[in-house]
Amino acid sequence: MTGLAAHRLGFFRSHASVGFTFIRHYTKLSVKDINPNMRRLEYAVRGPIVQLANELEKGLLSGEKKAFDSIIRCNIGDCQFAGQTPISFIRQVIAVASNTRLMDSPIIPDDAKERALRFLRSVGGSVGSYSQSTGVEIVREDVARYIELRDGIPSSTEDIFLTCGASEAVKFILELVATTREGTQRAGVMIPIPQYPLYSATLSEYNNYQIGYYLDEDKGWSLGTEELNQRLEESKKHCDPRVIVVINPGNPTGQVLTKENIEAVLRFAHKNNLMVVADEVYQHNIYVSDRQFHSFKKVLHDLGGDIANEVQLASLMSASKGFMGECGFRGGYCELVNFDPEVRRELYKCLSARLCPPVLGQLAMNVIVNPPKPGEPSYETFTSEKAKVLSDLAKKAKLVETLFNELPGYKCQPVMGAMYAFPRIELPAKAKEAAERANMPPDTFYVTKLLKSTGICVVPGSGFVQKPGTSHFR
Amino acid sequence: MTGLAAHRLGFFRSHASVGFTFIRHYTKLSVKDINPNMRRLEYAVRGPIVQLANELEKGLLSGEKKAFDSIIRCNIGDCQFAGQTPISFIRQVIAVASNTRLMDSPIIPDDAKERALRFLRSVGGSVGSYSQSTGVEIVREDVARYIELRDGIPSSTEDIFLTCGASEAVKFILELVATTREGTQRAGVMIPIPQYPLYSATLSEYNNYQIGYYLDEDKGWSLGTEELNQRLEESKKHCDPRVIVVINPGNPTGQVLTKENIEAVLRFAHKNNLMVVADEVYQHNIYVSDRQFHSFKKVLHDLGGDIANEVQLASLMSASKGFMGECGFRGGYCELVNFDPEVRRELYKCLSARLCPPVLGQLAMNVIVNPPKPGEPSYETFTSEKAKVLSDLAKKAKLVETLFNELPGYKCQPVMGAMYAFPRIELPAKAKEAAERANMPPDTFYVTKLLKSTGICVVPGSGFVQKPGTSHFR
Repeated sequence: MTGLAAHRLGFFRSHASVGFTFIRHYTKLSVKDINPNMRRLEYAVRGPIVQLANELEKGLLSGEKKAFDSIIRCNIGDCQFAGQTPISFIRQVIAVASNTRLMDSPIIPDDAKERALRFLRSVGGSVGSYSQSTGVEIVREDVARYIELRDGIPSSTEDIFLTCGASEAVKFILELVATTREGTQRAGVMIPIPQYPLYSATLSEYNNYQIGYYLDEDKGWSLGTEELNQRLEESKKHCDPRVIVVINPGNPTGQVLTKENIEAVLRFAHKNNLMVVADEVYQHNIYVSDRQFHSFKKVLHDLGGDIANEVQLASLMSASKGFMGECGFRGGYCELVNFDPEVRRELYKCLSARLCPPVLGQLAMNVIVNPPKPGEPSYETFTSEKAKVLSDLAKKAKLVETLFNELPGYKCQPVMGAMYAFPRIELPAKAKEAAERANMPPDTFYVTKLLKSTGICVVPGSGFVQKPGTSHFR
Repeated sequence: MTGLAAHRLGFFRSHASVGFTFIRHYTKLSVKDINPNMRRLEYAVRGPIVQLANELEKGLLSGEKKAFDSIIRCNIGDCQFAGQTPISFIRQVIAVASNTRLMDSPIIPDDAKERALRFLRSVGGSVGSYSQSTGVEIVREDVARYIELRDGIPSSTEDIFLTCGASEAVKFILELVATTREGTQRAGVMIPIPQYPLYSATLSEYNNYQIGYYLDEDKGWSLGTEELNQRLEESKKHCDPRVIVVINPGNPTGQVLTKENIEAVLRFAHKNNLMVVADEVYQHNIYVSDRQFHSFKKVLHDLGGDIANEVQLASLMSASKGFMGECGFRGGYCELVNFDPEVRRELYKCLSARLCPPVLGQLAMNVIVNPPKPGEPSYETFTSEKAKVLSDLAKKAKLVETLFNELPGYKCQPVMGAMYAFPRIELPAKAKEAAERANMPPDTFYVTKLLKSTGICVVPGSGFVQKPGTSHFR
């Protein structure tokens, strides 16, 4: 201990010993003292409307009488919660990998056992071990093969890291570009409006500047470069624009982008020095015959030249959507394209502090990107289960779209993909006035009424942001 | 579109159309442009020494001849990777919850099936659904009962949230106190030295100021309030001290704090207006008969008066350590004591943006806090498996401590708990000179040599920080 420090210490202690402690009060952390970025964060998909649904449900369970018997939760893209059956093969592999005594059970097919064994060998024999921070090597390899098969162009294991759901990848990428140095402009991130509120929440968390660009509702929620240019230019007085986020197929809007539209976005990103974050978690969810899924990576590659070699792209995928809907497993991956290897190394270093993604989520992702092959025992079942889920989702998409467009006051754009409809509602003047009296946006007023009178829980459009003066819900 | 914006847009386009694009180059994000907090982050447990181990292992697998056949990874507390058998009951519950067709299998005992059913009922029928952001209600309830049984004082479900490993709780709590407003002092966080590098990494990530306090090696790594006072006072010119982190049982140092020592820390926290983060993930890992685990919550309660009602405490627990060692499941919980309900609400709001912790990690945690009861079919097996793991760990702790103390140049403090020894090494002058020539700290030089000549991978003391002039490894 230095003499000076010892002196200070003595001084400090004598304060206490002569009773000066009464001037010090223990003050609890209050809301005004917490990290302001966290205070600003909002996440509508699990916001106040869901709290109200929870309260109503508790009331029902404790015997209260209402006009409905249960809450129907349409607030979140959680297919299994809504009754979708899990894909058998995924669950068989998970079960036998978790409890290897099942290697002797006839309930588990042989190919599921082989998958589990292959995975176990690569994680030191137990799913209870940590994996590498970037994810289990063979899963990363299988992801790369899946992408190669999808796009017909090479993919490198080095560029792929596994995540705790796609949301973790969003957080890491948006954290990476955040400028925290004083005296530098905030990093600007372009996001679609309406948007998936994970993006606005994460931008708040890392103090990035949100540059919203409107999707064109009357053109089926398409994405116009004129709008992109305009919003980008306007933003430059507030921030240093660094990233554009595109969600394709769209959430909450359900559109599927054409190849030409994606090309235009990539040219725009190249011209304006932006990294592209392509949220492609709904890549299996396409419901119309005149649209197909084009990955940003493939379209970028096909543009050729400087653009193909330069534009930095982070493409996100999840185990939670598609035909599998395994939200609870928190599986996901991110592929980096054209990233500086040193930056990639820094990012992977940061992954290491959270140790690893959930190992069974990685195993679920492994089965998704490397499903049973023709000739294997589970091939037929897997293929027919997958087809059934996707055709059911397609039927529901059509049904929802048609129904809404038959109702007066509703207008719903085509639901081409993803898992949502985002219908526009025209509320009567009286309803708008009542909403104003209740101090709520009209759509929040509407969905609150809907929940209270029918038990159906949807998310107001204001949670996703929408053009001023319009009202929607998802 | 406003006229002004349209004008800007036109201006912008004409630039491009007359070929001005050549003056714009697409510049990839470089290391100097990334978030400086991420750049500063270091995580030694998975740092350069582990990279070297990975390279050596690749060499061995590709047929290179070395003085050893395999890499022995002692760098991380991963018991199952080191050969520990998982607890059967945990895995049986996980397997049947994942694949409900196993409800008919005789391999799974009835009480495991009942646990799985109870859990499934509370998550809408499938482990593939999202749970509540704070975690599955019945797991939070079971955690509260576990704490009540442990401490003999009440615990409220409201104060408990489930996490993706304890590391996620660390991140959320240290993010909560971070001061990001310009013109305000950085939040100071006191952490033990040597420390678990997750703490220093997270402090970098959120730009908090690290106040290291030294544990007293010669007194069995105990924690002295004189040292705490001194470091706190010194720090005040650099930061606004807000939190003290204590790891008990200690990582990497293996000490178990006495009740008196914990009382002193709590009084210190109260006097100095600090929140306490108690990292209690090794609460099941006590190996000496003259020490027992005292929870910070219980000791706080027993102090009574203002201290008991005021000091804010966040206590962390994990599924990864103890007798279960289920690292890969990423299960964990955090209990908040004396937090302002509004602050708690803000924190829970932020949890919602990452949707939910891995559902099977929550189920693993559920079994840990609510194990089979006497009379249930799995009680005997569970109890004997748990006892076996803990007695094996105790034997290893004693063995390691004794062995090191018999070797010349090594000195190892008693390993009372946790899973690590942190022996001190006295290197000969020549070795120190060689280290200096190799531009490495002496301990890094030593562990690199050790790895290259024996295949044993340990972490240098410098990764955990240590008193200047001393060398250790974990």
